[in-house]
Amino acid sequence: MRFLTEPDVRLLAVTRWVAEELPEDAAAWQVNVDTADGEMLIEFAGRQCYESWENKAGRTNAQYIENIKQIGHLSVVEHAGASLRFAAVSRSWSHEAVRHRHLSVSQLSQRYVDSSEVNFVVPPAIRGTRLQPAFEAVCRRSVAAYETLTAFLVPTHEEPSTARIKLAREAARSVLPNATETRLVLTGNLRAWRWFCKLRATEAADAEMAEVACRVVEILQGVAPSVFNDFEEKTSEKDGRAYYHTKLSY
Amino acid sequence: MRFLTEPDVRLLAVTRWVAEELPEDAAAWQVNVDTADGEMLIEFAGRQCYESWENKAGRTNAQYIENIKQIGHLSVVEHAGASLRFAAVSRSWSHEAVRHRHLSVSQLSQRYVDSSEVNFVVPPAIRGTRLQPAFEAVCRRSVAAYETLTAFLVPTHEEPSTARIKLAREAARSVLPNATETRLVLTGNLRAWRWFCKLRATEAADAEMAEVACRVVEILQGVAPSVFNDFEEKTSEKDGRAYYHTKLSY
Amino acid sequence: MRFLTEPDVRLLAVTRWVAEELPEDAAAWQVNVDTADGEMLIEFAGRQCYESWENKAGRTNAQYIENIKQIGHLSVVEHAGASLRFAAVSRSWSHEAVRHRHLSVSQLSQRYVDSSEVNFVVPPAIRGTRLQPAFEAVCRRSVAAYETLTAFLVPTHEEPSTARIKLAREAARSVLPNATETRLVLTGNLRAWRWFCKLRATEAADAEMAEVACRVVEILQGVAPSVFNDFEEKTSEKDGRAYYHTKLSY
Amino acid sequence: MRFLTEPDVRLLAVTRWVAEELPEDAAAWQVNVDTADGEMLIEFAGRQCYESWENKAGRTNAQYIENIKQIGHLSVVEHAGASLRFAAVSRSWSHEAVRHRHLSVSQLSQRYVDSSEVNFVVPPAIRGTRLQPAFEAVCRRSVAAYETLTAFLVPTHEEPSTARIKLAREAARSVLPNATETRLVLTGNLRAWRWFCKLRATEAADAEMAEVACRVVEILQGVAPSVFNDFEEKTSEKDGRAYYHTKLSY
Repeated sequence: MRFLTEPDVRLLAVTRWVAEELPEDAAAWQVNVDTADGEMLIEFAGRQCYESWENKAGRTNAQYIENIKQIGHLSVVEHAGASLRFAAVSRSWSHEAVRHRHLSVSQLSQRYVDSSEVNFVVPPAIRGTRLQPAFEAVCRRSVAAYETLTAFLVPTHEEPSTARIKLAREAARSVLPNATETRLVLTGNLRAWRWFCKLRATEAADAEMAEVACRVVEILQGVAPSVFNDFEEKTSEKDGRAYYHTKLSY
Repeated sequence: MRFLTEPDVRLLAVTRWVAEELPEDAAAWQVNVDTADGEMLIEFAGRQCYESWENKAGRTNAQYIENIKQIGHLSVVEHAGASLRFAAVSRSWSHEAVRHRHLSVSQLSQRYVDSSEVNFVVPPAIRGTRLQPAFEAVCRRSVAAYETLTAFLVPTHEEPSTARIKLAREAARSVLPNATETRLVLTGNLRAWRWFCKLRATEAADAEMAEVACRVVEILQGVAPSVFNDFEEKTSEKDGRAYYHTKLSY
Repeated sequence: MRFLTEPDVRLLAVTRWVAEELPEDAAAWQVNVDTADGEMLIEFAGRQCYESWENKAGRTNAQYIENIKQIGHLSVVEHAGASLRFAAVSRSWSHEAVRHRHLSVSQLSQRYVDSSEVNFVVPPAIRGTRLQPAFEAVCRRSVAAYETLTAFLVPTHEEPSTARIKLAREAARSVLPNATETRLVLTGNLRAWRWFCKLRATEAADAEMAEVACRVVEILQGVAPSVFNDFEEKTSEKDGRAYYHTKLSY
Repeated sequence: MRFLTEPDVRLLAVTRWVAEELPEDAAAWQVNVDTADGEMLIEFAGRQCYESWENKAGRTNAQYIENIKQIGHLSVVEHAGASLRFAAVSRSWSHEAVRHRHLSVSQLSQRYVDSSEVNFVVPPAIRGTRLQPAFEAVCRRSVAAYETLTAFLVPTHEEPSTARIKLAREAARSVLPNATETRLVLTGNLRAWRWFCKLRATEAADAEMAEVACRVVEILQGVAPSVFNDFEEKTSEKDGRAYYHTKLSY
């Protein structure tokens, strides 16, 4: 059992351009070859709408995407995506995160996986304070209760079936707190991720949520710099925590 | 603090036909006037696709919808919807429920609402067993810990701001267990609800989930009998619990 | 064959509140009984999030929804919905309309329905101008070609199968123009409809699209006045056409 | 102006695994390194749900995905995606294609792009038959009418504004037929693409739709062989055309 004080967010996968040759009608397209693959696809999709392959304005990919964002043509941003893996996040975090209906979710199941050696996420407001020992004690007792419940719910005189173990775990998990660590893979297109970041990497969000969402912003600024460069890092005047802000409404 | 052993699911709203007069081209349409409003809309939408207003086959609405289901033309079922309100359900239940991306969700916020007098849902496998006292004790201790944490996190020497109270509650809720009661309104079209029922009112689902989803089936069989009449009540041979089964794959 | 110059948009169905009695914990809720049913549901869902049943601020339903819109809590608006039936709209209109992924669509099928007596929608810029006769001539010739193609594609020496007729119609429809009338039922929740109106009832939209979307705004202002009262009617300085504008970004 | 008899479908982009190192808890995972990147992600996401990193069953990636499909755990298939570019497809094709609400669409705009030199897609049932000349004549006349209308709708005595040109084109396109070529980029996750292929690459689909969807199946069988290997090529007994069939209902 560990008490976790830092989320573990990492990039698993991104969209990569694999077309060996451009379609004939798009041959005139002059794209900045330094572009990240997903951003190249976004520009291609945008130019498809207008057949503006000649790039008369001589825009770089970064300039093209900046214009896309300014005029609000966000649908083209949907063509590129990213998959992230989250660990050291709590079940209250994931309960909020999976509300994002444009994300695809694969999450650790408390019904299937034994929670006897589960970890807990210490909420930011409790980390390192005199409250942390009390918090940890509650977590420890919850695991002890979980073990007691599973011990009674799984028959010991015979080899229990998978269904029976699942039944025991799903009942016993009832005593595990919101702070229990969960792990999940979230995949979304960059428009969905922008919306996630806009809503969640803010001063008004739950403290753990904001902390994790800030990590998402940072990772995605690496994946697709032009798509996410309007997210500016800020420091809360209230409590000194970092958050991100974009002037765009989407 | 109450220990809840029965979900509270009730119907809030449904789709109602309000067109005073049918469009001219649909004048020949002969529909069974006994039809529930949403089912009348489903038939209208289906007939719109084929302009089959004459109803040459002389089908009743029930027969029409039966045919829709057999041929898998489920998109027309999307036109009718229903809103349900769930209480006496647990946070582990809601964590699964909000994964349904075609449902609209409004859920009690643990960040905004004080949890000092929260209730708990006793898992089916624990209800009335010798394990229930142990379960209740864990719940009681979690509320005591919640109160301790909020007391320390909210300053007492001044009137705390809403933001400060929210910060305290969001941190303190970390110790509240999965069993904590939540309440929510879920709205979906009948295709989305069919999918929910197909996945959740089953023998393989979490016991509380299946229990609640069975209530949903029963309510929706009242709302739209022809849409839901393929869900047959079954009794698990394993544990005697009720569930529903449909032969349709959607 | 008719040449249509006015869209036919009508309301088919809306969300109605049907709960006979409020849940116990919501008993204190004081709601304006004059409220349209869907708007009552929106308020109920909003209050569920905060358990603010007492209505301490003494807000009317209209005031409640105004506040919802100002703070951007649009998810609660999803609980109410409306179904509209569109006729006298063109296939280019419907091609744009069905792009709205939050709408449910049931549309007249050109593969199943004979188009020999189809109507055409005259684009606003052509209506009543000297161009209209040329436009009508093209439409008439397209129907003549359609009939020629179906005549050749369907064998006459035997009773053709449904599959064979469908094959003929789907090939023959290839010559029918964008102006061909289509009819469809569109259902959406009020958040989806707001987005539709915001994007489509504008000066920048296709002229027919804007015309039809303005009718949608008017109908929905009747269905849910508080939800849609920020859409203000405007007159284009460029061409005198009506459109709607809201200051909200969603 | 060309008359097109073969769709041009090509792969633009796919999901690529980019994680440099696996998360610590996933270190025991033994994955088949020959796996296509997207399929590796699918397996990772599946194993995350059960923390089954040890791969006790010793499954290859292909075996893992086969099992995923058999048990219907399709949500994990959503993590991998692909972007395709379609040209030489008709507007009636695209009208059906954009109905797929889980696909992201960027399509050539007839409002922005001049259609004077547009191409046409000959429907399969007409290709090479004595009907093709009649079909081509209708298409040619529609372009002539398009040019007449734009010539009258755009003022010639001054440099027309973009808005004015758009207004002319959107009205003039009303005479362009369903057969008019369009081009578009469609992006979807592999679950969405499976659904597209299941519904569209069939004997019952529109002939052009089936033809194009068969190309999609072939391309995606290259991208993610294990995900699409249940789609079997068939030959219609009715008309000798190729189509695909899967026994799975999703």
